[in-house]
Amino acid sequence: MALIVHKYGGTSMGSTERIRSVAQRVAKWVRAGHQLVVVPSAMSGETNRLLGLAKELAPPSASADSQRELDAIAATGEQVSVGLLALALQAQGVPAISYAGWQVPIATDSSYTKARIRSIDDTRVRADLAAGKVVIITGFQGIDDQGHVTTLGRGGSDTSAVAVAAAMKADECLIYTDVDGVYTTDPRIVPEARRLASISFEEMLEMASLGSKVLQIRSVEFAGKYRVPLRVLSSFTPWDIPVEEECRSGTLITFEEDEKMEQAVVSGIAFNRDEAKITVMGVPDKPGIAYQILGPVADANIDVDVIIQNVSHDGRTDFSFTVNRGDYARTLDLLKNTVLPATGAAQVMGDPKICKVSIVGIGMRSHVGVASKMFRTLSEEGINIQMITTSEIKTSVVIDEKYMELAVRALHKAFDLDEGAVAAE
Amino acid sequence: MALIVHKYGGTSMGSTERIRSVAQRVAKWVRAGHQLVVVPSAMSGETNRLLGLAKELAPPSASADSQRELDAIAATGEQVSVGLLALALQAQGVPAISYAGWQVPIATDSSYTKARIRSIDDTRVRADLAAGKVVIITGFQGIDDQGHVTTLGRGGSDTSAVAVAAAMKADECLIYTDVDGVYTTDPRIVPEARRLASISFEEMLEMASLGSKVLQIRSVEFAGKYRVPLRVLSSFTPWDIPVEEECRSGTLITFEEDEKMEQAVVSGIAFNRDEAKITVMGVPDKPGIAYQILGPVADANIDVDVIIQNVSHDGRTDFSFTVNRGDYARTLDLLKNTVLPATGAAQVMGDPKICKVSIVGIGMRSHVGVASKMFRTLSEEGINIQMITTSEIKTSVVIDEKYMELAVRALHKAFDLDEGAVAAE
Repeated sequence: MALIVHKYGGTSMGSTERIRSVAQRVAKWVRAGHQLVVVPSAMSGETNRLLGLAKELAPPSASADSQRELDAIAATGEQVSVGLLALALQAQGVPAISYAGWQVPIATDSSYTKARIRSIDDTRVRADLAAGKVVIITGFQGIDDQGHVTTLGRGGSDTSAVAVAAAMKADECLIYTDVDGVYTTDPRIVPEARRLASISFEEMLEMASLGSKVLQIRSVEFAGKYRVPLRVLSSFTPWDIPVEEECRSGTLITFEEDEKMEQAVVSGIAFNRDEAKITVMGVPDKPGIAYQILGPVADANIDVDVIIQNVSHDGRTDFSFTVNRGDYARTLDLLKNTVLPATGAAQVMGDPKICKVSIVGIGMRSHVGVASKMFRTLSEEGINIQMITTSEIKTSVVIDEKYMELAVRALHKAFDLDEGAVAAE
Repeated sequence: MALIVHKYGGTSMGSTERIRSVAQRVAKWVRAGHQLVVVPSAMSGETNRLLGLAKELAPPSASADSQRELDAIAATGEQVSVGLLALALQAQGVPAISYAGWQVPIATDSSYTKARIRSIDDTRVRADLAAGKVVIITGFQGIDDQGHVTTLGRGGSDTSAVAVAAAMKADECLIYTDVDGVYTTDPRIVPEARRLASISFEEMLEMASLGSKVLQIRSVEFAGKYRVPLRVLSSFTPWDIPVEEECRSGTLITFEEDEKMEQAVVSGIAFNRDEAKITVMGVPDKPGIAYQILGPVADANIDVDVIIQNVSHDGRTDFSFTVNRGDYARTLDLLKNTVLPATGAAQVMGDPKICKVSIVGIGMRSHVGVASKMFRTLSEEGINIQMITTSEIKTSVVIDEKYMELAVRALHKAFDLDEGAVAAE
């Protein structure tokens, strides 16, 4: 008997018919002798519907008070889906009980709309499991120490599932979604993209953070930190395929990278067009300047991704970074009103129409020339590179948004991903 | 400065436009210098939508486990509407905060789908009021001592509002609804029906319990028990009419009956077609038999309304009562399977196609002949009376459902309610 966490996305929960199918799949796992904790998302479209209603009524500028209400409203989507799934399981003759995040409780900080999980009390869940029940827990949400409902931000249900798996020391966390695994890149852009049977935790982290959208990045971080065995698989396989077969499907996120070292140099091409570029020009080049610029940005709860600072001329340098496109206007305002006067920088400029394309692969560590091959490929396509960053397992470039598809297709082909020369396939 | 509780029904909260109008009305009261606690229902149609989804998935026979899930699902309707109203108030520049029942907390027993409020902790609400905020609390729900979400049953938001008003010792509780007050009877059946400017608590209790549907009966009981000044009024008057004018509209439920004693004998005609009649025939007439029959019914959480037991013949009698039509089949089964064998009664019969029509009036206490006038009126219309019960301020008859409209119209006319000879008008 293993303790298994299942996570189902909004599409998998998209109708009563689909919820019934999820219940049948979960019931199958129970009958195979396992203890199940299930973390479903809201029914697809529901979170958008709720936030749409809220947007019609909310004050034009967000405050902590209004974000608190947004979270309370948005959190109801999952509160409905857990109840529905519990009923569907009971109808299958499987004892089940649902909990909202506040009931578990899943304790978070108070950063409304993007809260972070602090701790999960598993007492109640364990008691129910011991009593033979399937426990269904809302994704996406928790409760802060003041008793306010918080949400973890979009895609937060993945994080909830992995956090629950970590807290419960689950044997495996299965993320059921509407894709059947992690691909070398998005098949909608490159039809030749191939599913990876496994991917290292670090590669997955890069793929997720760069926009592969299969898993929320924080869920991958959590999985890595607590070594939660994680599998991404499709919820659209017939519910009654044998449990053993399901265990081999999808993509396994592994922590044993050694066995893959000799394999493909590049595992996949990731991309992200949800970012915007901001440059602070003519920054006095002196110690502490990066903190002076990014400190206020971080304090405003704005996530920064790529950060570039090049060598200076005449004691001044340009400092560039990217933020989520939704934070673009707010970040520009913040810089103009507070950072510019404080630092004595000359000017703030920005461009929201950019995208980031990255090549990702553990193999890169031991292979030279991977980055230059990437730059050559883009050059041959006439694509100008605006920013470059590198890490041990990825190389990212920021380019004009309109070249994104072209860049991804060219790189996918250049790194032989079309051919099936893919790690662990 | 007064502490005022507003309650808004589902129709008043039926769209973002209407919620905005509710916010404007509440803001007007705040600007007039009052402290406001608002208890809104779910947006109209929402509770039905949620329960409809649940019904598609739920096991065919209800259990405590499945009812727990139903409550958790249904309770989200109000959790959305409180958040939306808080946002709409914030957009008006009025500080506001919303709470779900579990956050207040509103403590209830564990009778899922028909829980009863045990206590309300007003600490948090008072602190927010003192901080200048409008506090918005979900109607219809609470939390039991195990931390499970419970609902109070249909119309429970009225009860929540009155209970909050009682706990806070509010100066007045205004129930905004889609009718503009309490009428001598339902104007859809009798176009000549007239609005009552005031009605005694006891009359209101009878009118509500008998199906006037303006207020949930438990809310009236609560109001009476804690002497909460209660006004039923329309939420469809323009939101910007002066507060003083709003205070004179609708129908006030009074506790000072003396001043009305000399007035009309009958204040209104109530009716209810949501009941079903059940008769246990040939019951041995011995002490304890009523309890033997109704004890198991009450244990099954089935509400009983009219109860009739007449004199016996040959040591046996017939025992009749009415239940909600939704409990009809369940009650029949219960009686056949457990009560019949236990009591030695001969047979159980029932009829779901009945209705109850009542004349209600404080004046009845001091006037003879009111009941006989009622019976004569029905007789003249050729309507057969199946059951009769009387109390100090009402006389009710159970008749064939198909005669309901006819009976109500005839009685409304016979007691001069058409003519405007109405208490306190």
